[in-house]
Amino acid sequence: MNIAIIVAAGSGTRFGAEKLKQFLEILGKPLIIHTLERFESCPSIDEIVLVLPFKEIENFKKTAEKFNLKKLAKTIAGGQTRTESVFNGLNSIDSKRTEIVAIHDGARPLVSSEEISRTIEQARETGAACLVAAVTDTIKEICDGKIVGTIDRKQLRRALTPQAFQFDILQRAFAQSDVSETATDECFLVEKLGYKVATVEGSAKNIKITAPEDFILAEILLQQF
Amino acid sequence: MNIAIIVAAGSGTRFGAEKLKQFLEILGKPLIIHTLERFESCPSIDEIVLVLPFKEIENFKKTAEKFNLKKLAKTIAGGQTRTESVFNGLNSIDSKRTEIVAIHDGARPLVSSEEISRTIEQARETGAACLVAAVTDTIKEICDGKIVGTIDRKQLRRALTPQAFQFDILQRAFAQSDVSETATDECFLVEKLGYKVATVEGSAKNIKITAPEDFILAEILLQQF
Repeated sequence: MNIAIIVAAGSGTRFGAEKLKQFLEILGKPLIIHTLERFESCPSIDEIVLVLPFKEIENFKKTAEKFNLKKLAKTIAGGQTRTESVFNGLNSIDSKRTEIVAIHDGARPLVSSEEISRTIEQARETGAACLVAAVTDTIKEICDGKIVGTIDRKQLRRALTPQAFQFDILQRAFAQSDVSETATDECFLVEKLGYKVATVEGSAKNIKITAPEDFILAEILLQQF
Repeated sequence: MNIAIIVAAGSGTRFGAEKLKQFLEILGKPLIIHTLERFESCPSIDEIVLVLPFKEIENFKKTAEKFNLKKLAKTIAGGQTRTESVFNGLNSIDSKRTEIVAIHDGARPLVSSEEISRTIEQARETGAACLVAAVTDTIKEICDGKIVGTIDRKQLRRALTPQAFQFDILQRAFAQSDVSETATDECFLVEKLGYKVATVEGSAKNIKITAPEDFILAEILLQQF
């Protein structure tokens, strides 16, 4: 089985809103539902584990009943850090039945089914795969407020999600990590094991919603979806 | 005097539109006019040189009459590359009267007057300054489609514009460069001279309009301006 762990355990209300970011509505539907639907409709995904803040789980379950999320197998509580939340998701999975685990940010509702499938397929072949996008900005290396170099952006990629792994590789990566410290992403933990994670080229439209203007942009992009 | 060179000499019609990108309207006004207005209203700017595709100059002049652009001193023709376009702008400037030159992308209408002033002030103090924004994505270094490292993004910045320079430093940088090859930005040419360009922290809202969705986002952000 291929399992998606969707992480939406952040407790940030950055937009000054009453609701947490992941439950704010876009086109009449909570953000997290949009994200779940991407994985629901992806033929490469068999089951979904959703990681939420503990106190949101009950409310979410009532909301989720309105949507046809047949693959949503578990909704579990997150930890103190993002890495801990992913770890909780990983621990909830039956290791015997799992081949590939795809980890995804709940705040990325614009991933396509095809991108998810390609990332999983790559992980099946090479052990670990990361969906990436080109770096379009000129990137400067700085030191003490001064530019010390311009990095050749052809050699750089922005790490998106999903990031997919053969289950045993990801488990070993977590076993050797301190989950109380947030890693920037799961690939980094696997890189530290010495694995060369394969990249899968994805679309820049797969944005992570963090600022209020991202929310507006996501609405426009979801209308075109 | 402090002079802004605003570069909008691209001939791309990426949006499948009849008009060039820089002349498409946002909130009833051509994109390039929005950008010009940011510099018009900035007290640190004395004159503006606008660089356009040659065949657009006459039409633009008619359009510009409708707007109150008192600082727009010259509208000149661009070259084959962006670097050549900036070079044309630089050559049109009276060196005796010029202290600071600020170079800006015509496709960045969301820069604030305060950001322009801070960048110019920094260039006055240290010779060269670049407006930058934080890197929010996790950045991977790749080789042959595999991740070979995760770069600490605290040491990275995205180069925005304006980029401002003492006139003589920029002139020397161009004298030592091949303008037929496009540099990613003007800072890079000055970095090659051995100067340590100072960074000025700016807002992520100062986006460069490249994709159609950027256009829609810019409209929303300009409404909040």
